[in-house]
Amino acid sequence: MRMKSCGIIVEYNPFHNGHRYHVEMARKITGAEVVIAVMSGNFLQRGEPAIIDKWHRANEALQNGVDLVVELPVEWAVQSADYFAKGAVKILQTLDCDSLCFGTEEETSFDYSSFGRFVQENQDRIEEAFQELSDQTYSYPQKMTEVFRSLYPDITLDFSSPNHILGLSYAKENAKYVHPMELHPIRRKSAGYHEKIITDQRIASATAIRHALEEGKRIAGLVPPQTEEDLSTCSLQTWESYWPYLRYRLLSSTLLELTDIYQMTEGIESRMKTAAATADSFEDFVSKVKTKRYTWTRIQRLSCYVLLNIKKQEIPVQQNKNYLRLLGFTDAGRRFLKEKKEISIYSRIGKKEAQEAELLVRSDQIYQLGGNIPEQNFGQIPIRV
Amino acid sequence: MRMKSCGIIVEYNPFHNGHRYHVEMARKITGAEVVIAVMSGNFLQRGEPAIIDKWHRANEALQNGVDLVVELPVEWAVQSADYFAKGAVKILQTLDCDSLCFGTEEETSFDYSSFGRFVQENQDRIEEAFQELSDQTYSYPQKMTEVFRSLYPDITLDFSSPNHILGLSYAKENAKYVHPMELHPIRRKSAGYHEKIITDQRIASATAIRHALEEGKRIAGLVPPQTEEDLSTCSLQTWESYWPYLRYRLLSSTLLELTDIYQMTEGIESRMKTAAATADSFEDFVSKVKTKRYTWTRIQRLSCYVLLNIKKQEIPVQQNKNYLRLLGFTDAGRRFLKEKKEISIYSRIGKKEAQEAELLVRSDQIYQLGGNIPEQNFGQIPIRV
Repeated sequence: MRMKSCGIIVEYNPFHNGHRYHVEMARKITGAEVVIAVMSGNFLQRGEPAIIDKWHRANEALQNGVDLVVELPVEWAVQSADYFAKGAVKILQTLDCDSLCFGTEEETSFDYSSFGRFVQENQDRIEEAFQELSDQTYSYPQKMTEVFRSLYPDITLDFSSPNHILGLSYAKENAKYVHPMELHPIRRKSAGYHEKIITDQRIASATAIRHALEEGKRIAGLVPPQTEEDLSTCSLQTWESYWPYLRYRLLSSTLLELTDIYQMTEGIESRMKTAAATADSFEDFVSKVKTKRYTWTRIQRLSCYVLLNIKKQEIPVQQNKNYLRLLGFTDAGRRFLKEKKEISIYSRIGKKEAQEAELLVRSDQIYQLGGNIPEQNFGQIPIRV
Repeated sequence: MRMKSCGIIVEYNPFHNGHRYHVEMARKITGAEVVIAVMSGNFLQRGEPAIIDKWHRANEALQNGVDLVVELPVEWAVQSADYFAKGAVKILQTLDCDSLCFGTEEETSFDYSSFGRFVQENQDRIEEAFQELSDQTYSYPQKMTEVFRSLYPDITLDFSSPNHILGLSYAKENAKYVHPMELHPIRRKSAGYHEKIITDQRIASATAIRHALEEGKRIAGLVPPQTEEDLSTCSLQTWESYWPYLRYRLLSSTLLELTDIYQMTEGIESRMKTAAATADSFEDFVSKVKTKRYTWTRIQRLSCYVLLNIKKQEIPVQQNKNYLRLLGFTDAGRRFLKEKKEISIYSRIGKKEAQEAELLVRSDQIYQLGGNIPEQNFGQIPIRV
C-alpha cells in the first residue's frame, strides 16, 4: 500500500504559525498521507547559524503536522537558491516523493512546472543569452530577468523575491528528473519573507519573530506551544556567538590558506582579514567587508565557509555522497520509511557515518561552541512523536 | 668608545625581585656598562602565553636595571632548550655582546665554557653515542646523561634541572661562534624554578608568584613596584583564555591539516582532536592528551603551534630571518645601539616589517584575543626609560 507523500523544503528558524498553516495547506491541497520536511541543519541558506538547534526545530515541526524530518546537510543548505534546491529536491526524489509544496509571494497562477520544463529544454539558449550579458554591470537577478524577458515572454518574471526565486529553482531542478514531482505553490499568508513588523495577530515571519526576541518582546501567539517552550529554554544562537571564532580563524590563517576556502574569490580574503583585525562585532565586520559586488548574504555565506573551514575541493566531494540524515518521524512517517528499505538512511551517527558525513559532524561540533548546546550527532537518535 | 656589554636571556613572567637580583649580579660580575635582555615575546618557552604582554614586561625590566630589551620571536621562544638557546645567542652575537650571564641551580664551579668547546669539538662522537642509545626507552635527558657519562667523565651532568639544561645549551651554542661570549653562571637565590611555595620574604619564583595570584594572595614585596602595578592593571593571561580558540581550531581542522602543524607527529593529532571534543578546560585537555612519551610541556608547545597555526615548513623560513625587534631602552641602551648602525633593528612595524616578521605579528594578534590587550605591534614604538 503505497502512501501518498508531499514534500516541503524548510528552515524553521524557528517554527511559527505561518509554517503550521503551510503544512496544513500542503496536506490539504495534495491529499498526502505523509508530509516530509527537508530541513536545513544548524547552518542556514542565508549563511546564518540557526537560532535553535536542529533537534529542537525538528521536534517543533513534528508536533505541528510534519510526519518526517530529514536534514539538508550544510553542503547543500548554505548555498544560493540553485544549489539549495538541487540538494533538497534530490532528497525528496530519493524518497520517491509525489509532490512538492512551496511558499511564494507570487500569485499562484504562475505555472512553475512548465517554466521548469522550458528551462530544461532550452538550457543552451538560456546560457547563450546569459553570456551575451556578461559585459553588463547587471546583478544576477537583473541578468536573469533580461534573459527570460526575451526567451520566455508570456510572463514577466520577478527575480527579486526570495521565495519566488527558490520556487523557480525547485521547478528547474525538479524538471531534470524522469518522474518530476507535482508542484504546488502556496501563497504566503500575511507576512512577507523579510518583513520585520508584526502585522497580523497570529502570523509573522521568522525574521520578525527573531527581531522581536532580540528586543525582548512577547512572541506568544505567533508560535505554537512547542516553539514557545524551546525559545525560553534553549540556548539561542546568532552570528555574534560565533564571531570570536570567525575572527580568530581569519587572524590566524595566512592569505594563501584563506584563498583555499570555498567561494573565496580574489581580493575578498584580504578585505576579510583586515576587517577582522578592527571589527568589534559580526555586524561591524560584515559592514566593513561589504562592497557593491558582495551582498550581505554572500558575505554571511562566505563567513560560514571560513568558520566551518570548508575548502573549495570539499563541497563537490560532500555533494556526491548519498546518505539521508533522519531527524524524526511520526507514526505515519515511520510507516512511510518502512517502504524505503533500499535507501541509505542514517538514524545514528557512528564512526563510519561520521566519516561519510564528515562536514556535517564538524559543522555541528562548531555550532555547539556557540553556547550551551547538547551533542548534535553521536548518541542522538531520531525523535518519535 | 666601545661600551662593555652583558647579555641575559629572560622571559620575565612576570619580572620579580629574583630577576632584579640577577640583573644586579650580572652587571657587578661583568662590569658591564649595558645589560641587554633578550626576552621572549607573548608566548614562552614552555608553550604558554605570557601572563602580561611583552611591552609591560619590557617596561618592568627597564625600570629595574635592564638597559636594552630585544624580543626573542615566537619561532625561537616556543622551543626546547637547544633552539631557544640558538635564537637568543644569535641575537646577542648579532649585537656583538661581550658576555652572557645566566641563572643556574648548579654550583658555579661547573665550567660551562669548556663544556661548550668539548661539545663543539666532539659533535660526531656525541651524535654516535646518542644513536647507539636509540633503541633504549630512555627519555632525552636520560640519554644525554648516558652519553656524557662515557665521553665527558670529569663531571657528573644533571640533565633534569631546567636552568642548568638551558645553561648547557647556551654554552654549546656560544662555542660555535668565532668570538664566543664570556659565560657567567649565577647561582639562583632562594627559589627553585618550579617551586610553588614562597619560602623567602622577598624572593619567589615566577611560578610561585603566578600561583599566588591565582589564589588571590598578596604578592607585594616579592615584585618591584612596576610589576605590582602591572599585575593590578593589566589583563592577565593564562592558557584558559585561549582554550576556546584552541578547541575550535582542533574541532574545525581535518586530521590531514593538523598533521601539517609544526612538531605534530603521527597519532597525536588524533588524540588532540578527540580530547578537544570532550575536555572542559585546557588543563583537562592536556591531561587527556598526555602519554608517557608526551610531557606536559611538549603538549603545551604543540598546543601553541596549533593555536598560532604554525606549519612545519614555516619555522625554518622564519628562523632564517635576521631582524631584531626592539622593545625598549635606557640612555645607556640608546648609546649602545648608536654603535650598531649596520644591524637591521625594527623599532616600528610597518607593512614591510609585518611581512618579514609575519609569524610574530600573527601570534601577537592571537595573543590579543585573550583579553583586553592593547595592540602589540602596529603603531607601537620602543619604550624609553
